[in-house]
Amino acid sequence: MMPSDSLLDALHGLVGQRGLLLGDDARPYCTDWRSLYHGHTPAVVRPGDTAELASVMQLCAARNVPVVPQGGNTGLVGGAVPSEAGDTLVISLQRMNRVRAVDPLDLTLTVEAGITLKAAQDAAAAADCLLPLSISSEGSATIGGVLSTNAGGNTTLRHGNARSQVLGLEVVLADGQVWNGLRRLRKDNTGYCLRQLFVGAEGTLGLITAAVLQLQPAIVESESAFCAVPDPASALELLRRVRRQDPAALTAFEYMSGVGVDLVLRHIQGARLPLPVRAAHYVLLELTTSRHKAGLREQLETVLGRAMEDGVVLDAALADTGAQRDALWSLREEHAEAQKRAGASVKNDISVPISAIPDFLARVGAAIVALDPAIRPAPFGHFGDGNIHYNLIQPEGGDGEAFLARADEMATVVNAVARALDGSFSAEHGVGRLKAGLMTQWRGGPELDTMRRIKEALDPAGLLSPGTLFHVPMPQVGLTVT
Amino acid sequence: MMPSDSLLDALHGLVGQRGLLLGDDARPYCTDWRSLYHGHTPAVVRPGDTAELASVMQLCAARNVPVVPQGGNTGLVGGAVPSEAGDTLVISLQRMNRVRAVDPLDLTLTVEAGITLKAAQDAAAAADCLLPLSISSEGSATIGGVLSTNAGGNTTLRHGNARSQVLGLEVVLADGQVWNGLRRLRKDNTGYCLRQLFVGAEGTLGLITAAVLQLQPAIVESESAFCAVPDPASALELLRRVRRQDPAALTAFEYMSGVGVDLVLRHIQGARLPLPVRAAHYVLLELTTSRHKAGLREQLETVLGRAMEDGVVLDAALADTGAQRDALWSLREEHAEAQKRAGASVKNDISVPISAIPDFLARVGAAIVALDPAIRPAPFGHFGDGNIHYNLIQPEGGDGEAFLARADEMATVVNAVARALDGSFSAEHGVGRLKAGLMTQWRGGPELDTMRRIKEALDPAGLLSPGTLFHVPMPQVGLTVT
Repeated sequence: MMPSDSLLDALHGLVGQRGLLLGDDARPYCTDWRSLYHGHTPAVVRPGDTAELASVMQLCAARNVPVVPQGGNTGLVGGAVPSEAGDTLVISLQRMNRVRAVDPLDLTLTVEAGITLKAAQDAAAAADCLLPLSISSEGSATIGGVLSTNAGGNTTLRHGNARSQVLGLEVVLADGQVWNGLRRLRKDNTGYCLRQLFVGAEGTLGLITAAVLQLQPAIVESESAFCAVPDPASALELLRRVRRQDPAALTAFEYMSGVGVDLVLRHIQGARLPLPVRAAHYVLLELTTSRHKAGLREQLETVLGRAMEDGVVLDAALADTGAQRDALWSLREEHAEAQKRAGASVKNDISVPISAIPDFLARVGAAIVALDPAIRPAPFGHFGDGNIHYNLIQPEGGDGEAFLARADEMATVVNAVARALDGSFSAEHGVGRLKAGLMTQWRGGPELDTMRRIKEALDPAGLLSPGTLFHVPMPQVGLTVT
Repeated sequence: MMPSDSLLDALHGLVGQRGLLLGDDARPYCTDWRSLYHGHTPAVVRPGDTAELASVMQLCAARNVPVVPQGGNTGLVGGAVPSEAGDTLVISLQRMNRVRAVDPLDLTLTVEAGITLKAAQDAAAAADCLLPLSISSEGSATIGGVLSTNAGGNTTLRHGNARSQVLGLEVVLADGQVWNGLRRLRKDNTGYCLRQLFVGAEGTLGLITAAVLQLQPAIVESESAFCAVPDPASALELLRRVRRQDPAALTAFEYMSGVGVDLVLRHIQGARLPLPVRAAHYVLLELTTSRHKAGLREQLETVLGRAMEDGVVLDAALADTGAQRDALWSLREEHAEAQKRAGASVKNDISVPISAIPDFLARVGAAIVALDPAIRPAPFGHFGDGNIHYNLIQPEGGDGEAFLARADEMATVVNAVARALDGSFSAEHGVGRLKAGLMTQWRGGPELDTMRRIKEALDPAGLLSPGTLFHVPMPQVGLTVT
């Protein structure tokens, strides 16, 4: 057993004063932003570069000290928070935030893990390129976190999730060795695709320290439309039609329930419905292209005009300006905030095959009514990816605590329907600690067994993000927390 | 030790007469089509379905019998051939060739591993969809092989390689358990991305038995152009210009040297240069779109017209008919056959960052001249992906055997330049047995160590494709070959 002051002294020697946060300074790193988890840590270590981080990890490996990497701490499943036991060191990547290279000819961007997604987008834009990843938390979320959780977002339909944007990685392994896989190659068939193993591993296999991201040419034309549709089946038909016309331009296809939009209109100042009549279901879609004179507006008007003639769309509003576009998108983006103001809510992040969404919405809706007709379902999300955030809002004027006490019951209802339709219990938020308990039920058998084998092979002492993904036995830590 | 007749009896009991090939019937499965490797096998097992294959693998695991999976046996690196020792069972997937499902709304195709890529393309086309994977050997190559080797091909530039098309997999693991990961989801963040680990693993981690592939809407318009360019730097500039105009439509951008095209014109009956004057460098590019009335022709004429004004393109021929398109493509596709007829050749499959291709071609060209000015370099390939097949043809009228005796020397020259430019020694053909010896040099250290850990975790007895990817110690096999 090594006393903690010896550990802290050693860490201080490796990263200096600036690289170490203790006591009150460390506290903000021990809670997730939704305040679902409250942990403790002997210290927050903030290495300045990969070599420092590697030496910290070597020290932790030698002393059997568990660590949890943290980026912008914007996760929704508790994967970046140290455990309650207080034995886990937080390794913050926030000082490692440099742009290492950008190449508009190769369409590649090399960045360190601690850079925010927004700053990475800006670096791409400065080179007249697009980093096609966008999530609500992009101002705080870091590339390391975005990759470790394989973030999705609003453009997955067109460009794929974070996984699809990665050409190369640099990773500090559990023993403190550095794997430099920062390759800028489109093709490289030389053994196992390690980068795709670290992407989405939620920090349990290694610490991502830098990445080569694949860029796209900058967007030169875009069109957005906010549509009222009679039902989810019509939303699906609209998706089919828009995709048929120009699949390469369809960038976002978002669904919102009337309940959810009404909550935004009620709780968010300045929010305004761009249509004269409210509806039970809405779609927000966006076309973008890097092609000049693409005529997206005409294209969109044509497909929406026909859809209205056929009753697939009830009414539609197209954005004429950037401000109008932002206003349309705020109806979608403000869902989380509006739901928060409406009281307690239970969040679900499920996916099903796209064609199954109407069935999914109908079945879950009926099951929730059976549970309690006063619960307000406000499903919304990435319809075009088969990803629905089936959020449930507490009964109007009801008791929030009592509602939250039934959270598991509600999640079970939602998950059961997703499962019956060959879906998943986590589409884009990941597993973290919040959903680790579901892994056995959903992925148990050969799949979870294979994952455990990989975990044990790459992190035999279980030092990386213990408690995330699996309920791993806690390692014997050589640290007394004082 | 279990005598082989007992093993064969047991296998016969599992797969029946039809599922077992012995003696002369097994021989064709023991050689690759380039005749680089000649192995022996106690039997070729051809299971009829996943359950049969699983029971065969259980038997092999129990008796410590190594296996090598084989699809269309079109690989270029010896990864599908049993070892010379004769202890390795060949498991042919060819009877498992069903289309399980196709869904044009979800844009998914579920097929068994033994279906040919061509048959899978046809199944997609029958549902008015596109499976965007195309390689020369698609009439024989199977989906299982294509995925296990992460095949690339002519449309990688637009759609990514095989890895990018996979939503789900079914895999028989080393112990004979079946992992059913045939999910049809665009988003599913529930633990490690196992499918991307099995894709490209060349059969060393499990046997892929079925896959869910992501489809695209069918192509409705395409244009091809064959261009003479003054030098590789101009080819790069042409790529930049075409990509700038409409990146979503650019599907192929292939480079050919004048030497290579001349060989095709000389050795392939009916081959004809579509331009009045020969050149030292050519580009074949293709635009495709699912958008109606896209005006690709006008777009292409505009960009090529300006490129000719600026001296970036010397001359260009556009295909007016499907027959003309095929004729242009045959100049590219017949490179392999023409080179074969021109005598002995040494094939290289390297990749570099796209912007480094001109430098790569210049440096390798100079190095080969220094080695022997009579050697004929005929580089060609997927310029837009940074992937060049730097093939070297024996001196005209020279001794083929003597030339081949220097193959390693030539490959070393090519690889050294690729390495200096942050490239890879295998872009799309994989490692197999041919290049396993290069893994230590190129991927040694933490990367290869991590791969070995994964291999040992998932196939502790080393029964799956021994000798491929790593020089693994051969397992103690419980089998006497008679």
